[in-house]
Amino acid sequence: MLDPNYIVGFVDGEGCFSITINKNGDALAEVRLLFEIELREDDEAILQQIKDVLGCGKIYHLNYQRYDKWRPHVKYKVSNLSDIAGKVIPFFQRYPLQAKKIWQFEKFCTVATMMARKEHLTSEGVAKIKWIRQRDSLDALDTHVQWGAIETT
Amino acid sequence: MLDPNYIVGFVDGEGCFSITINKNGDALAEVRLLFEIELREDDEAILQQIKDVLGCGKIYHLNYQRYDKWRPHVKYKVSNLSDIAGKVIPFFQRYPLQAKKIWQFEKFCTVATMMARKEHLTSEGVAKIKWIRQRDSLDALDTHVQWGAIETT
Repeated sequence: MLDPNYIVGFVDGEGCFSITINKNGDALAEVRLLFEIELREDDEAILQQIKDVLGCGKIYHLNYQRYDKWRPHVKYKVSNLSDIAGKVIPFFQRYPLQAKKIWQFEKFCTVATMMARKEHLTSEGVAKIKWIRQRDSLDALDTHVQWGAIETT
Repeated sequence: MLDPNYIVGFVDGEGCFSITINKNGDALAEVRLLFEIELREDDEAILQQIKDVLGCGKIYHLNYQRYDKWRPHVKYKVSNLSDIAGKVIPFFQRYPLQAKKIWQFEKFCTVATMMARKEHLTSEGVAKIKWIRQRDSLDALDTHVQWGAIETT
């Protein structure tokens, strides 16, 4: 099994904690969290090992051509909220990120907390998530919600 | 201090072990080894920490504009052969790379061994190094030189 600190180093370089907000016609926009790592296809084995340690997520092959020099890519993705809340976030809390990606992760955790409280199902919640997402850091976020105090049922 | 396994994970994603061969007019081409990590400037702190653990190399600020969306970058670079042979290579032999970058590292080690033997100062040696560099892997390299059996004075 990969050393957890190796995974932290790899994710600090190549991982992505993203907050997506998809418009939904006149209905409330849909908020989703995604943890992803995208690499060239010939590095699939390392994604499989990271998946084994985190114990969740799926690996996808991306074979379409985005641009001339495209080579096939492979993506490890966790989008299930209970996996994110119960596996991904606790892992990176136990083994903290060391580079600037930690700010992306903090925003990700804050939104996960809000989602566990169903705040993303209200227009006020979605507006707040949009505001959190576009901030450079959470320094000035006076309503900063600490992860850890919530249930992730 | 950063955990060594963290550094391995980070380098597997973001590091580069390169073999450069610079033409030199009619004289023998110059072979150099470079270990580099290039990141956006706001991640300089992590490069400083990696430099502290490896105990060699320098950090450079890259402020020129390469393309429209350019943001200032920062680069950690080790180019001194004795630092590469005495610090960088032993580190990644003790804490092995896990992703496909290990093939790049193996070629790098092979050329370091040749350089320690001054083979890069002959035209035959330079030709062999060119051949090693363009290979996808060292699988078929029958003259595969093992690192470890050489002195790095």
